[in-house]
Amino acid sequence: MFRKLLTFDEAKQVIGQHFKPKPLGVKEIPLLEAYNRVLGEDITATLDIPPFNRSTVDGYAVRAEDTFGAEENKPVRLKICGTVNVGEPPKASVDHGKAAETVTGAPMPEGADAVVMFEHTERKNDELYVYSAVARDENVMKAGADIRKGEAVLKVGQLLGSREIGVLAALGIAKVKVYAAPRVAVLSTGAEVTEPGRKLPLGKIYDINAYSLSAAVLESGGKPVYLGVFPDDMDKLQTVLKQALTSADIVITSGGVSVGPKDIIPQTLDLLGKPGVIVCGIATKPGKPTTIASIDGKPVFSLPGHPTSALLIFHLLVHPIILRMAGRKAEKTSRVKAFASMRMFPAKGRRTFIMVKLRHDDANRLIAEPVPIGLSGAITTLARADGFVEIAENQQFIDTNEEVTVQLFRSWGES
Amino acid sequence: MFRKLLTFDEAKQVIGQHFKPKPLGVKEIPLLEAYNRVLGEDITATLDIPPFNRSTVDGYAVRAEDTFGAEENKPVRLKICGTVNVGEPPKASVDHGKAAETVTGAPMPEGADAVVMFEHTERKNDELYVYSAVARDENVMKAGADIRKGEAVLKVGQLLGSREIGVLAALGIAKVKVYAAPRVAVLSTGAEVTEPGRKLPLGKIYDINAYSLSAAVLESGGKPVYLGVFPDDMDKLQTVLKQALTSADIVITSGGVSVGPKDIIPQTLDLLGKPGVIVCGIATKPGKPTTIASIDGKPVFSLPGHPTSALLIFHLLVHPIILRMAGRKAEKTSRVKAFASMRMFPAKGRRTFIMVKLRHDDANRLIAEPVPIGLSGAITTLARADGFVEIAENQQFIDTNEEVTVQLFRSWGES
Repeated sequence: MFRKLLTFDEAKQVIGQHFKPKPLGVKEIPLLEAYNRVLGEDITATLDIPPFNRSTVDGYAVRAEDTFGAEENKPVRLKICGTVNVGEPPKASVDHGKAAETVTGAPMPEGADAVVMFEHTERKNDELYVYSAVARDENVMKAGADIRKGEAVLKVGQLLGSREIGVLAALGIAKVKVYAAPRVAVLSTGAEVTEPGRKLPLGKIYDINAYSLSAAVLESGGKPVYLGVFPDDMDKLQTVLKQALTSADIVITSGGVSVGPKDIIPQTLDLLGKPGVIVCGIATKPGKPTTIASIDGKPVFSLPGHPTSALLIFHLLVHPIILRMAGRKAEKTSRVKAFASMRMFPAKGRRTFIMVKLRHDDANRLIAEPVPIGLSGAITTLARADGFVEIAENQQFIDTNEEVTVQLFRSWGES
Repeated sequence: MFRKLLTFDEAKQVIGQHFKPKPLGVKEIPLLEAYNRVLGEDITATLDIPPFNRSTVDGYAVRAEDTFGAEENKPVRLKICGTVNVGEPPKASVDHGKAAETVTGAPMPEGADAVVMFEHTERKNDELYVYSAVARDENVMKAGADIRKGEAVLKVGQLLGSREIGVLAALGIAKVKVYAAPRVAVLSTGAEVTEPGRKLPLGKIYDINAYSLSAAVLESGGKPVYLGVFPDDMDKLQTVLKQALTSADIVITSGGVSVGPKDIIPQTLDLLGKPGVIVCGIATKPGKPTTIASIDGKPVFSLPGHPTSALLIFHLLVHPIILRMAGRKAEKTSRVKAFASMRMFPAKGRRTFIMVKLRHDDANRLIAEPVPIGLSGAITTLARADGFVEIAENQQFIDTNEEVTVQLFRSWGES
């Protein structure tokens, strides 16, 4: 089966043609559990905030015009007609020449349109001396001044942090519709791979990818479904992939895709449904063996076995699809500018991603230092790299001290 | 009860004297559940990675010296003595003049010290023609080349992302010790406050703070315990606070701390234990009514009722304590540089924090634009501000177009 290696841009185009990722539906959950979920509905205020005219100071609710002309040495005298409490409907009502004692946050009594602060009054039994005039609405927060009933408050797709949850609470919303997290099945393949926690016979290595990719799925807003490790056996793989495709929205495998006698992933994928394999190899470094299938509309990503390559291709191609299925707005990857510590060469004719570690030099400039991803880089590259630098296919090299853009790993999936 | 208003720096100093937040103990959890948790142990490699000498290419395992002198037109001939499979102990052993077929990832057979790539060989029945010499260790990844047994790999306090989880998996670690999340009890007080989801009688408003602060606790790595809304009743408050202090590591209340006839929080706190209230008012704007108690070593933070003030003071004073109790390294708040859109004045003699929204101007400069926190700012400030600008007590103002540092909200608790 011959298939053409696609360029990175071609691969992205093919992915874009086959998958139009959309949110998978909403469910209603308690607001207290909504942190870090994605809002699945537009929120319109069903009440004014504040819901009533409130006093913003401790003092006396009055008719403003009754205080006009009041001065330090020429107080206006009003009759105290009652007290307004916070949290209760006002029992007093304020006619001309009257004043009702009130406190911050209490509703304005009928008739009153301003509040005189305590500091500008003096009380003598039932009589109030007002030493300073107030204008209409002074020291009053009007109903709806903050949010008007009917106002659009939050939009579908909003990631819910502490501030948005506060806004929803203010509107009395105790349950909120959020997008369902896409289910992403994750499995590793390879005769040499063993699950962590088991004994390690000679010739075997522990599985890394199903673990790191499951965590990366969480970072992207998906729900990982860990399926474990499978040998390079077409029948067994077909069975588990079929099951995965019935319950998951996306399937990720890693390993078993390198060109060689055991290259059975593309063949297995083609048997699962139509159209089958749509990308079989990408001209990138790393990530060349990446294989992608569309099985009755669901994406299956077969990532390289090399842990850093797998996470990188996940970040570049899988992460954006999970994000959109999770209902999140496509976010910009966090980037920083830095200076190359040495010359960086691309692989000839391939879009090249060079893992880098960031550090400050003596002049406090941010320096991007390549972390070798080569033979010995499987694990240590993962642990050491802060991000990566992209080099175009036709670029000769990035020179020492050239300014580069580093795409950061740490913010994967965070927004 | 008279207490002195502390400056912001004095308040931080008092907090530092009374609380020495430390992690609260570890528990062992499955690695698959460890995403975004904090590592509670130093991790030392208990095995070499890779665990054995591996071939890094498909080809033939040989003794390098047998290939010396091999060239395109002067091949060396070797005898094929078997096949090495990936994931299995090698059955073949390679003597002088011999070669064993092998694949990427397979363990090196005894006797062999290099691998010739397929592309540089030709096989004729049992005989192998080698057209290119290999050096010792060529195309071999040595045991321990990536991580040596005994090497320190991850340090206690590390936040576990996809990359760290990959590293732990590589070492065969299926269960990992993580720090317990500090339990943070959250309640709101005030006669006017009602829980979202209930009916809203005239004079009442919905509780915001217990919800937004619970989410902020999650953002900081704590476990919120939502207790609900309580009236300004000393007996009831004392009961709930006592209960909260037995089960939680930190208690946060909000509302009910403003100066006035209903200012009962400080009095209640003093009754709960020793030394009681340690901070009663801070010369900040906003956040002046903030009250802090130490009750038998546990911190109780009584934050202002104003939602933006409460979240701001949480961020400035509570967040760092939760972080350290969660075992996380103190992280720098995310900051960006921006230009002030207008003159910003501090409140006289108070450390002032001005909420700002960020935008780019026509020249693509980042602009920090104040969001009013005043009378009408309760909810909309929360929703609109991207962060805040700090102005020192003795600074006259920040001028239009002056460069300012904006501390970002969105990254609260993220790292």
